[in-house]
Amino acid sequence: MSESPIGRDTPQVNARAKVTGRAQYAGDIQLPGMLHAKVLRSPHPHARIRRIDTRAARALPGVKAVLTGADAPDALWGVHHKERRILAREVVRFAGEEVVAVAATSDEIARDALELVTIDYEPLPALFTPEAALAEGATGIHPGRNNVAHEIAFERGSVEAGFAQADLIHEATYTTHAQYPGYLEPMATVAQVDGHGRLQVWASTQSVFLARMRLAAALELPVSRIRVMQTTTGGGFGGKIVEDANSLIAALLALKTGQPVRLVNNRLEDFLGACSSLPERLTLKLGMTREGRIVAKEVTILADCGAYCGLTNEVMHVSAMRSDNMHRLENVRSHAVLSYTHTPPHGAFRGFGGTQMLFALNSHIDTMAEKLGLDPVAIHRLNAIQAGDTSIHGWEVGSTGLMECLDQCTEAIHWAEKRGRRDQAGRRRRGVGLAAAMHVSGNRTIGNWDGSTVVVKLNEDGRALVHSGECDMGQGAMTMLSQVIAHELTLPIEHIQVVPPDTDTSPFAIGTLASRVTMSGGHAAILAARKAKAQLLALAAELSGHAEETLTLIDGAVRLRDADNGEIVADLATLARQHIWRHGGEGLQVSATWDPQTRMHDDDLYGNIASAYSFAAQAVEVEVDTETGRVEVVESFVSDDCGKAFNPLAIHGQTNGATVQAIGWALYEQLQVEEGRIMNGNFADYTLATADAVPMLASGIVESNDPKGPYGAKGASETAILPGAAAIANAVHDAVGVRITDLPITPEKVLAALRAKEDADHA
Amino acid sequence: MSESPIGRDTPQVNARAKVTGRAQYAGDIQLPGMLHAKVLRSPHPHARIRRIDTRAARALPGVKAVLTGADAPDALWGVHHKERRILAREVVRFAGEEVVAVAATSDEIARDALELVTIDYEPLPALFTPEAALAEGATGIHPGRNNVAHEIAFERGSVEAGFAQADLIHEATYTTHAQYPGYLEPMATVAQVDGHGRLQVWASTQSVFLARMRLAAALELPVSRIRVMQTTTGGGFGGKIVEDANSLIAALLALKTGQPVRLVNNRLEDFLGACSSLPERLTLKLGMTREGRIVAKEVTILADCGAYCGLTNEVMHVSAMRSDNMHRLENVRSHAVLSYTHTPPHGAFRGFGGTQMLFALNSHIDTMAEKLGLDPVAIHRLNAIQAGDTSIHGWEVGSTGLMECLDQCTEAIHWAEKRGRRDQAGRRRRGVGLAAAMHVSGNRTIGNWDGSTVVVKLNEDGRALVHSGECDMGQGAMTMLSQVIAHELTLPIEHIQVVPPDTDTSPFAIGTLASRVTMSGGHAAILAARKAKAQLLALAAELSGHAEETLTLIDGAVRLRDADNGEIVADLATLARQHIWRHGGEGLQVSATWDPQTRMHDDDLYGNIASAYSFAAQAVEVEVDTETGRVEVVESFVSDDCGKAFNPLAIHGQTNGATVQAIGWALYEQLQVEEGRIMNGNFADYTLATADAVPMLASGIVESNDPKGPYGAKGASETAILPGAAAIANAVHDAVGVRITDLPITPEKVLAALRAKEDADHA
Repeated sequence: MSESPIGRDTPQVNARAKVTGRAQYAGDIQLPGMLHAKVLRSPHPHARIRRIDTRAARALPGVKAVLTGADAPDALWGVHHKERRILAREVVRFAGEEVVAVAATSDEIARDALELVTIDYEPLPALFTPEAALAEGATGIHPGRNNVAHEIAFERGSVEAGFAQADLIHEATYTTHAQYPGYLEPMATVAQVDGHGRLQVWASTQSVFLARMRLAAALELPVSRIRVMQTTTGGGFGGKIVEDANSLIAALLALKTGQPVRLVNNRLEDFLGACSSLPERLTLKLGMTREGRIVAKEVTILADCGAYCGLTNEVMHVSAMRSDNMHRLENVRSHAVLSYTHTPPHGAFRGFGGTQMLFALNSHIDTMAEKLGLDPVAIHRLNAIQAGDTSIHGWEVGSTGLMECLDQCTEAIHWAEKRGRRDQAGRRRRGVGLAAAMHVSGNRTIGNWDGSTVVVKLNEDGRALVHSGECDMGQGAMTMLSQVIAHELTLPIEHIQVVPPDTDTSPFAIGTLASRVTMSGGHAAILAARKAKAQLLALAAELSGHAEETLTLIDGAVRLRDADNGEIVADLATLARQHIWRHGGEGLQVSATWDPQTRMHDDDLYGNIASAYSFAAQAVEVEVDTETGRVEVVESFVSDDCGKAFNPLAIHGQTNGATVQAIGWALYEQLQVEEGRIMNGNFADYTLATADAVPMLASGIVESNDPKGPYGAKGASETAILPGAAAIANAVHDAVGVRITDLPITPEKVLAALRAKEDADHA
Repeated sequence: MSESPIGRDTPQVNARAKVTGRAQYAGDIQLPGMLHAKVLRSPHPHARIRRIDTRAARALPGVKAVLTGADAPDALWGVHHKERRILAREVVRFAGEEVVAVAATSDEIARDALELVTIDYEPLPALFTPEAALAEGATGIHPGRNNVAHEIAFERGSVEAGFAQADLIHEATYTTHAQYPGYLEPMATVAQVDGHGRLQVWASTQSVFLARMRLAAALELPVSRIRVMQTTTGGGFGGKIVEDANSLIAALLALKTGQPVRLVNNRLEDFLGACSSLPERLTLKLGMTREGRIVAKEVTILADCGAYCGLTNEVMHVSAMRSDNMHRLENVRSHAVLSYTHTPPHGAFRGFGGTQMLFALNSHIDTMAEKLGLDPVAIHRLNAIQAGDTSIHGWEVGSTGLMECLDQCTEAIHWAEKRGRRDQAGRRRRGVGLAAAMHVSGNRTIGNWDGSTVVVKLNEDGRALVHSGECDMGQGAMTMLSQVIAHELTLPIEHIQVVPPDTDTSPFAIGTLASRVTMSGGHAAILAARKAKAQLLALAAELSGHAEETLTLIDGAVRLRDADNGEIVADLATLARQHIWRHGGEGLQVSATWDPQTRMHDDDLYGNIASAYSFAAQAVEVEVDTETGRVEVVESFVSDDCGKAFNPLAIHGQTNGATVQAIGWALYEQLQVEEGRIMNGNFADYTLATADAVPMLASGIVESNDPKGPYGAKGASETAILPGAAAIANAVHDAVGVRITDLPITPEKVLAALRAKEDADHA
């Protein structure tokens, strides 16, 4: 009998295509007559465009189009605010903003053409910080607005009353910085107008339907005149949800030239054009009893969305309130302000605002634990929300494995033995740190629907084709769907083929965000497969004369339920053919939709927005070089409560990737932005954590078997990135007694803090 | 209010793409690394392959593969008999058989490589005629078989008793020849292996699912490992149903090289590789009363399928019995034998065996009418089957417009005035002739299913996408589906987009054959649209609070049924969005299948195989040059009973095309086959009827409104080709008194007949 793939280490179903180099990325597409596009970006953070002279560029042989803002539709695009043009018109608002787009017969000609464009800019004073932008009398970055892109304020319970009960009140401010998504494949699009005048777009995207919506809005076309097909996508991390202008520019050029157009960012272009994560300054004030119970929590956030808001209002919303749900709280208050500045825009990023606040909160708990003489793990345990609880914001927690996550991490890192090694001498000191996190599995935000539809088609050879609009950006959606269908139809996973998302042929889907795909897509796949199975059993019963209830599906065949020998009534290939070739027949193709029983938060921000909530904890050991200030992570253990691990291999892969990305954010990566200009838009100067910066990674899985998850599963790709930065900061503090609240934890900051501490110790 | 497109002249929805040159034919596809293929064909009608030396070809720079039968799978392919290899092994059975296939980096290199292949053939004695093949002691063309590919024999009633009642018995033999399909676009395929190791095939085909089945069988692959996508198809006429080896060779080369391969026939290659229509020798013996009632009918057919049987057994079956259903008959007998020969294989062709027998039958009726002193029209009327009748073979005729067709034709051609102009003098004589025909609308043959599934997806802009696996080969399937959906959803036809057939994304479908698409696909489209409409009305009722029965769909919006002002409750765009964005929502996508209530004929060949039967009649006037023997059609009127003309423009287009194709078959086209070799495989020597050979065409439509047709419609693309040849032969007889029973009616035959007649008249 073939074993079910659910719970088994399962290589990604598209791994072979990727490692053999046969996977088709958008940049691999070649179409007859295809042009190559390049984009000229503003060198100024803020300027008036006085004049653009494209004549010389247009005269260059091979150049087919040179477009400016005047050629772009009047429509403004954007998620929260419609505020951005495909190409800037009159004003540029950040250094890197798209001003001129060229399509030419080769990449080289397009690049040369850009050099022939002359733009007469009138540089204008720029606002580089939220403080400057929100200062009285500051210029409005967008006309008629006060530079506040979004504001959130709420209070539940009474924070004042809470603080009144506190034995310890601690307030501190944490600063987080923008992280570049760092996917292997930069933004890439090929667009063309087909023979029917429809726009066809092949894109590296996390959501074909959101992409189609954005294209329709920005290009002023009905969605039905657009077809978006996802190509193999080399990572997204949130950056390929909605924010890129790449596909819009390629599409505009295709519409204007009537020829296919390829626009693939090089790495510098991608640094300039993609959205990095939202930098936030978070002020956290917690009140605790001496036992460590949190009795009041006050959050103040000032976030900088850059020149355009994108999805950052939602990101800030998450920072402002998601962590409240991890604890049993009674009194919380948040005030968060999102400011425009004349800097490159920010957006969604793996963890979606959770990383920022969980850095602050876990650092804060560590600090207060020390002040109270408690183990921070004890504080996490004491306050942790429990299965069956409804959180202060209305989240119904059906399962939590946080306690087991904390157990796994602390055991793995030898927390009790290693913590607080005050006796260390010499230059290199070690310390351990820990942090806890929670995340959503899905999120009812967009239009009050968080569902997913899966279509299963059983071919005449008894193998299945699966259609879903949920995108695989490398995280494994196709593998997950294959596993579910294989499991339900008792087929080998090799007999399942998931068709890539395509707005013409896939059922409508929101796409890959908010760790929603396993939850919604997985449930839909189960329903669809069971619908197919029911049809197969009914047909087998009808054709064989056996009562339907005596039949069951085992190992790709309908068998007599009670037969010892598992007598085959009909195999799936035979049934699939019989399903067609008969009176009233048809190809076996079923569709099923699953929409969670969740609620959009109400005007008061209250509501159970996700079916399930995932948890994680991470413990790390670091070594701090007290002479150079360099911090090295020497051990890391992340424990992820993913509900149920469909595919432990994939969970560990996600966890390892998240761990590295968190190490990068905490220690190494930093966009150098000077006067609004990104100065290190390349992988030599923007230092991702490389192999020598990463310890042998270890991770554990906790299966809390959520009652609402498919087979008990919850999302498992974002949670693991959340605790890393705080765990490292806490470990640094454990090692050398300094608290870095301003990410990244650079050698300079550590050295400065060590010196300050020394000064204070000797004062 | 937008007018329904049903019944209105509607340009083909893909006309714009075609006339602007933007339609993508298979030959237009370019893929990175794509190779070009060429095929070396046997020059011998029958030979043993002693040795193939491909070394020099393989050594030619740019050559990537040189394949022979040894490289092809052992599997045999074919429809009725599995008997053919992708590339010949050991033996070749016709001149033109595929022996070696080359893939190279350019078309020119591939062609050069063919010249470097040396094949040592041992020519063997060949059997060129059925008579030779069926002679005692003849070599078996396929091992262990007696050269009979198929045989049909039946009798209903008593033919002997029938002839005993006859006042006139007439027997004659008619010979019909093979017609090359003559589509504008020759066979064309591009194949590649995708990153998952699956075979992707873009093909010019009438059926993507039958193509997939054939590829799977011939390449020994599961169907799920193959994806077939129909490209814009420049005509099929039956030739692109199942018989071509083109896609198999392209696919084999793609599998062997791992690179995309393009194989596009040039015209000569297409003449050699494609199947022409089935040549039959038909002996017809009819018994009539002196009133013209047919009391006995005996048919003997000897048909020549060539070296491989393909679909010709089915074609011969149609010749043997379909015309029996046009009349009220009691006594019929048929005996038909299909013989292999060492000649190029034949196959399906527009009319599918009907043209052959209807040439014989209509010629015969004309002859007997003269002998009885009757108007042949009177004989057609007297014997015609009537609505409500069940034919001798069990066909239930729900509607027939044959009487009206006869009326239209005879009136248009001025039958009464022009017939029998015995007083003509001079070189050029004119005559009129008429013939009647019937055809099926669908045909329950393949696996006892003749259904179709249509998926309708309503996008958020209130426009619809339609998925069907039925292929548009130029006949207008996409337009028909668009019309139906537009009509049912009260949308402008421009708001409907039909997605081309693709085995991965389209619902399973049989494809375009047997004039089945309007019947089955049209019904399925109606059902799917009505399902979508019901969901929209229910949603509008739920959201508006109006009772569902008070709502109706008019002009793209749900309105109050009784409101004088047609108050809009919600437009379709709004409803499509609301269908998603709500609790329990999903993208509006519905699927519906329609399978006709027909029966496969039983072992006794009895059964109502089609939902409906279409009829046609044609009257022509010809001018015969008695000095040269040249026949010119100077007037033609075809009247088609298509049940209901969805699109009169398309019906007239089909009728005109069919008329020209019939004129070509009757007068001009003839494959010159010498010793089994096609000698005129080009359009200079194979003379299609060109503009100067065709009169101003006129046609009429009869709407018999079949009770089982969608909106009353029946098939309308094959019927009109059926009467042409006989009408012309009858007109020639009317003009000059000679009866040509051997197609085509060449000047030589006419002159010879005139001389013979003169000799007889003077004898």
